[in-house]
Amino acid sequence: MTPDPIKKFIEVFSRLPAIGPRLATRLAFHLTTLDRQELHALAVAVNNLKGLTRCERCFFLKSGTQKPCSFCADTTRDAMLIAIVEKDTDILALETTGRFKGQYLVLGELPERGVLESSHKLRLRALKDRIQKELKGKAKEIIVAVNPTTFGDFVVDTVGQEFKTLAERVTRLGRGIPTGGEIEFADEETLRSALERRN
Amino acid sequence: MTPDPIKKFIEVFSRLPAIGPRLATRLAFHLTTLDRQELHALAVAVNNLKGLTRCERCFFLKSGTQKPCSFCADTTRDAMLIAIVEKDTDILALETTGRFKGQYLVLGELPERGVLESSHKLRLRALKDRIQKELKGKAKEIIVAVNPTTFGDFVVDTVGQEFKTLAERVTRLGRGIPTGGEIEFADEETLRSALERRN
Repeated sequence: MTPDPIKKFIEVFSRLPAIGPRLATRLAFHLTTLDRQELHALAVAVNNLKGLTRCERCFFLKSGTQKPCSFCADTTRDAMLIAIVEKDTDILALETTGRFKGQYLVLGELPERGVLESSHKLRLRALKDRIQKELKGKAKEIIVAVNPTTFGDFVVDTVGQEFKTLAERVTRLGRGIPTGGEIEFADEETLRSALERRN
Repeated sequence: MTPDPIKKFIEVFSRLPAIGPRLATRLAFHLTTLDRQELHALAVAVNNLKGLTRCERCFFLKSGTQKPCSFCADTTRDAMLIAIVEKDTDILALETTGRFKGQYLVLGELPERGVLESSHKLRLRALKDRIQKELKGKAKEIIVAVNPTTFGDFVVDTVGQEFKTLAERVTRLGRGIPTGGEIEFADEETLRSALERRN
């Protein structure tokens, strides 16, 4: 009994992991209350995402017309300081701190376990080339800013080995009790890290 | 530093109450992982909602080409039995029970308090005309299926008064402890209703 355009909308938006069936339904009916212009703006916004590509230097998203991306093009940022992240959104999170003025390498989402995939290896390879060509073979610091999981630690070790001669230091993000967190509810591993890294 | 198409996407999708800024951001970056065809399908799904109109008889949503809507067109449904609901999605919820085989009137969302707006009054007027013209001036039953709030109760009373001569009975949905609910946590009003309506 649901009109076809709504059924179709729910069908395609339900597939998005960030949405799911319940929200897709709510969204569909909410959108029916908008006027044609507002709907048009939403459709255009979705369509324009087609124009995105990835920076060939750091693999962050960029508009098709930009080359390289805005981080790589920013000469006020320290090219000798490189943060390796998994996802584009990790960069946005780091940027909100205002404390990192280096450049990036987006590695791509890591599997939960196993080994680095060929896509990850290609990007690490690109970073090595970048250090050789642009930094005369030696970066100041590489921060491996991946999530603190077992596989994340493995990636930190791998990068540490592979970039031993290509960076003065390879570091990772500090671990401990998050701000606002409670010691009582911290897991054993976090608490152990917090103790070891007490300062 | 976020590419413009993503900024724009987040801007327009953040305005939707079902989405908000956090989810809009997550969604934007998720969509960048889709291929052009998938993005196109999403944009088309949004665009096609423009083709929706409202049934002139019951005010439920329908495709522009349908006339009347699928509920009104369904001759197996009892036209003498009419449920007044606030929203389209309330109809979908009632339909999932499989227990209502009458027809509908979508009243439009009610304010939390105050008085019925002119849009609501126009739709009630349309229902009166429909009963006069199609049912020889008398429906069997009108179920006022609005949310059980103070204003909802007021609407039930208003409809009860206005349709006194136009329906054999004006009823509302039963109230009480919801299935799976706990007596201990039920509010006073719900518990009172549950006691009064014990059976």
